[in-house]
Amino acid sequence: MSEPVVQHTSQSGSTPSAENPGKLVQASGIAAPFQDAIKEAIQARVDQGKSRPKLVGILPTPSPPSVAYSEWTRKACEAVGIEFEIWKTWDDSVEVKEEDHKGTAPDFDLEADVEDLIIAANADESVHGIMVYYPIFFGRQDTYLQQIVDPRKDVEGLHFSYCWNMYHNVRWISPSKLGNAPGTTRELPEERATREALDAEQVPPGMAKSILPCTPLAMVKCLEAVGVYDRELPYGDRLFGKTITVVNRSEVVGRPLAALLSNDGAKVYSVDIDSIQEFNKRAVEPSSEPQGRARSEIVKKAHAQNTASQLRPHHVVRNCNMTAEECIRASDVVISGVPSANYKIETDWIKPGAVCVNFSSEKNFKPDVRTRASMYLPAIGKTTIAMLQRNLLRLVEYRELSEGPSK
Amino acid sequence: MSEPVVQHTSQSGSTPSAENPGKLVQASGIAAPFQDAIKEAIQARVDQGKSRPKLVGILPTPSPPSVAYSEWTRKACEAVGIEFEIWKTWDDSVEVKEEDHKGTAPDFDLEADVEDLIIAANADESVHGIMVYYPIFFGRQDTYLQQIVDPRKDVEGLHFSYCWNMYHNVRWISPSKLGNAPGTTRELPEERATREALDAEQVPPGMAKSILPCTPLAMVKCLEAVGVYDRELPYGDRLFGKTITVVNRSEVVGRPLAALLSNDGAKVYSVDIDSIQEFNKRAVEPSSEPQGRARSEIVKKAHAQNTASQLRPHHVVRNCNMTAEECIRASDVVISGVPSANYKIETDWIKPGAVCVNFSSEKNFKPDVRTRASMYLPAIGKTTIAMLQRNLLRLVEYRELSEGPSK
Repeated sequence: MSEPVVQHTSQSGSTPSAENPGKLVQASGIAAPFQDAIKEAIQARVDQGKSRPKLVGILPTPSPPSVAYSEWTRKACEAVGIEFEIWKTWDDSVEVKEEDHKGTAPDFDLEADVEDLIIAANADESVHGIMVYYPIFFGRQDTYLQQIVDPRKDVEGLHFSYCWNMYHNVRWISPSKLGNAPGTTRELPEERATREALDAEQVPPGMAKSILPCTPLAMVKCLEAVGVYDRELPYGDRLFGKTITVVNRSEVVGRPLAALLSNDGAKVYSVDIDSIQEFNKRAVEPSSEPQGRARSEIVKKAHAQNTASQLRPHHVVRNCNMTAEECIRASDVVISGVPSANYKIETDWIKPGAVCVNFSSEKNFKPDVRTRASMYLPAIGKTTIAMLQRNLLRLVEYRELSEGPSK
Repeated sequence: MSEPVVQHTSQSGSTPSAENPGKLVQASGIAAPFQDAIKEAIQARVDQGKSRPKLVGILPTPSPPSVAYSEWTRKACEAVGIEFEIWKTWDDSVEVKEEDHKGTAPDFDLEADVEDLIIAANADESVHGIMVYYPIFFGRQDTYLQQIVDPRKDVEGLHFSYCWNMYHNVRWISPSKLGNAPGTTRELPEERATREALDAEQVPPGMAKSILPCTPLAMVKCLEAVGVYDRELPYGDRLFGKTITVVNRSEVVGRPLAALLSNDGAKVYSVDIDSIQEFNKRAVEPSSEPQGRARSEIVKKAHAQNTASQLRPHHVVRNCNMTAEECIRASDVVISGVPSANYKIETDWIKPGAVCVNFSSEKNFKPDVRTRASMYLPAIGKTTIAMLQRNLLRLVEYRELSEGPSK
């Protein structure tokens, strides 16, 4: 990324209104420079006589948003030279009604079919990356399936190991140790990169950059592109002074995103159906004793040990007594990913000049959002696919680090 | 276990009524023979000059059910010679109100405190087993924490690897490979035990029996003890002909339990807030094509590969159009674990002579349940603790297999 795609105008420019609406920003423009770099990297591999990376997209059901997303993935992969295969659970030569996938048929076995495909893709050496078009069952059964994908092929970054790395700001990993338990062999203190190495982007020998969950990562890239990140500030503080509301606290997107943004210095309100939490970057100095509660000696000792070995999360979470409306009214950036056609954020709640981003397949903002927002991103899917492709290249790197360079 | 603690009387005995209520069965009687065996095994270790196994119980909040459960664990561990430590997040010398743990204090950092304790326990070589008194946050944030516990110390069997093993009827594991992704190195076909070896309880060299999630396992032991399992039938079919309703489909208890019971031959209705599913044992012959839907070639191929390598789940799940009432009326055994004081199963729905088991900390059955049930188990916690202790001994075995015999 060289220059922001769009300059952030809300501070200097005029306040948006019905006559002078904020900018509509498309994710395709943000994704373009990343895709160029990916295309170049793949061409360089091919020029060296190496194979093209191969991505498999597992399509569990013919639900229209999943099918549409898989077709975008196909086009985006063709555009950069990634080999892409869609593995469907059903046979297209037989007419399929979506209801048939709801599973009342006597031999319905969707979860086992998806598992079969994941396991076959794990075992197939020609496959470098696997993605699954969720949601399938919604909720925890999907979380279970996400853990079955080999972390060495998990382009979406949904494996527990990658969330852990993100929450703890673990940037470099030893691919051969992926999946080990924290505190044991996952991350030894001497393997943690120093802040200096991090700033200089020096890779410790035998290590590679950790995958990040691709939707939260795409969101960061979008916010960077529209100028929400302040490049004048040091790395890790570039959202300093910004207040951001994220509506949705799923383990897949909302919670990692809140953590990622707070790690970059923002105050983040994480709004979900049942509660609101506030995420802030953890202070370098140990925090004072929480009010009305004293930490036990054993927690203090564990805390000290883990701080020394850099194993503490880089953000602090606390419950918040504000309402969703109060959070949104206070926010410079409002991000929403509620998977419901009925959920709409009141345009009146949006601070004039704020940046609004929708990552739900439904529209969570009303049509008049740009009468208040200085910028509105209606979708980020194309940037997400670009991040997925970047993750794929990183997984190819992991494999080469583990096994030596392959054809 | 030699003889059932209680004979199952509903078939031969008189039908329960208000005058002649069914039996009240306490879990302590079921747990006793297991505890005797555990005590003996630990004494044998001590006699060989080996250390006592050490269990750490992490207590995140002073919620009364968690504190009570931790005290039961302490007593049960003292009774069999297991060293037990409670690691609390708070300091008892400062008065704590439960509300203080709800997290509105500015420096509230409960998740990080629990993580700190888990990581310290993972890293502490003197600790053989770790349990955490859930629920903390309810929902997926707890699921995340469950993945942080090293599977080599996970006495509760909540790590993804153990659920996977349970769903796939993987009985033997190589402790050094715990946590690897399925289809890669988790389970190679040649490592799968044959049915004959399984029946003879022969352990393949270098392998040990897989941990099972301890609440579902305790439920099986309770149902065996009260005679629901038919010992005349071959292993794996001992629930043949039984219909069982399980109310609750959490990833921690309800879903694994439904799978475990269907693997033993029962037809299981799994009832949750939003849906009802039916679990059945997978037929040995490949199932016919599902109605209204044809499997794709790639699924058929993956299916065949995974069947050959015994990597398919041993149960089939389908959605069910029956109501909860219809499921319960059809059931020989009704099991409930709804964490709400308001949820009560109508006594009228219970088939006369059925066995009823409650595993919620709230009472999900009404006081008159025994006017219909031939047997009622109001709680299974003591059996769960015995299974947890058995799991602890197995983890000690894992460590010795990985590292060679230790002191």
